[in-house]
Amino acid sequence: MERTGVLGTGMVGTAIASKLVELGYEVKMGSRTSTNESAAQWVARSGAKASRGMFSEAAAHGEAVFLCVKGDAALDAIGLANRENLEGKTVIDVTNPLDFSKGMPPTLFVCNTGSLGERLQVALPASRVVKTLNMVTSDVQVDPKRAGGDVTMFVAGNHQPAKEETSMFLRQFGWQDIIDLGDISAARGMEMLLPIWLRIFAAFGRGHFGFKVVRSA
Amino acid sequence: MERTGVLGTGMVGTAIASKLVELGYEVKMGSRTSTNESAAQWVARSGAKASRGMFSEAAAHGEAVFLCVKGDAALDAIGLANRENLEGKTVIDVTNPLDFSKGMPPTLFVCNTGSLGERLQVALPASRVVKTLNMVTSDVQVDPKRAGGDVTMFVAGNHQPAKEETSMFLRQFGWQDIIDLGDISAARGMEMLLPIWLRIFAAFGRGHFGFKVVRSA
Repeated sequence: MERTGVLGTGMVGTAIASKLVELGYEVKMGSRTSTNESAAQWVARSGAKASRGMFSEAAAHGEAVFLCVKGDAALDAIGLANRENLEGKTVIDVTNPLDFSKGMPPTLFVCNTGSLGERLQVALPASRVVKTLNMVTSDVQVDPKRAGGDVTMFVAGNHQPAKEETSMFLRQFGWQDIIDLGDISAARGMEMLLPIWLRIFAAFGRGHFGFKVVRSA
Repeated sequence: MERTGVLGTGMVGTAIASKLVELGYEVKMGSRTSTNESAAQWVARSGAKASRGMFSEAAAHGEAVFLCVKGDAALDAIGLANRENLEGKTVIDVTNPLDFSKGMPPTLFVCNTGSLGERLQVALPASRVVKTLNMVTSDVQVDPKRAGGDVTMFVAGNHQPAKEETSMFLRQFGWQDIIDLGDISAARGMEMLLPIWLRIFAAFGRGHFGFKVVRSA
């Protein structure tokens, strides 16, 4: 694989796109408009392997595509990307269904009996959605040592080869302990980590931490 | 403190009551009926410091009280315990709001915008509810080494001295890394760990694991 797409230009999209360039991939960062300032700045500082375009162009470019937009924009971004551009591809879902409309801390706009990961898989029946990386801050996503020790990452999805492809990216990012939680409905548990993540963040005053699943041998 | 009450006679109640006896406390295990077989067997094998009674008798006995019933019986058990018997006391809430009525895996009957911990504090306005221990299996609750390494425990509650009292019990059980997540609304995040706990349990085929919050120094 040589080409990856990254949908989203915020902290998560920028961190993942930059790491992918560093790893040697040709990365196209996608946004809603062709004039996105964050994407332009990222391209300007990221060298010849970095490019930008509309969501649809980044989706078409990538052999695998990272979805890094805000949770409440995720289904809309997928629609703008045009699902034909994502057919047969692994879509790595890093989103969280955070609802900031009711004040802080945010709640989840779907949980318990559903998840954003599942909604995305339903919206993209010909793609292979894998949920991962949503429960750590962007610095830690692309450099797990930044959490301060050995941390666990989870993957969930309906397609085993897509989870293996995702795990290959995760290992390139530095993740060593990767637990496969099964089908995409396990995205519920992964997204439902956000409320305790937010409370730990408040208690520590920083986001450089992660969850290690300690278990007997 | 010499006397503790334990409401509930299942695996969690039995594990915690037994550990408390081992630590030298006079423990009364409470149940809904005076003929509870599990409580009778526990008393028969647990020596002179162990006794049993109705929920109300165990609540009256304890200077601090552990609530270890099934989540969907928690508010009912508190009612039977008679809230006057819990006034001014620390009530250590180990319950989970699991709903098995929709099949397996269970969902949560309250989450995201509320929690069972909060409901219990509302039902017991003159008591000091502390949420803890709900996200590990009973063996690990009273012996965290059984998780296979250094694991983190959380506490949440509105009353600082009650959280300190709870942490004292936790340290006696063997917990060394205890994070105070703030007021009782943090019970949401602690209870919302259950869905991923259930998926990890399914992936591993055993419950002897726990979550360590890895963080930079």
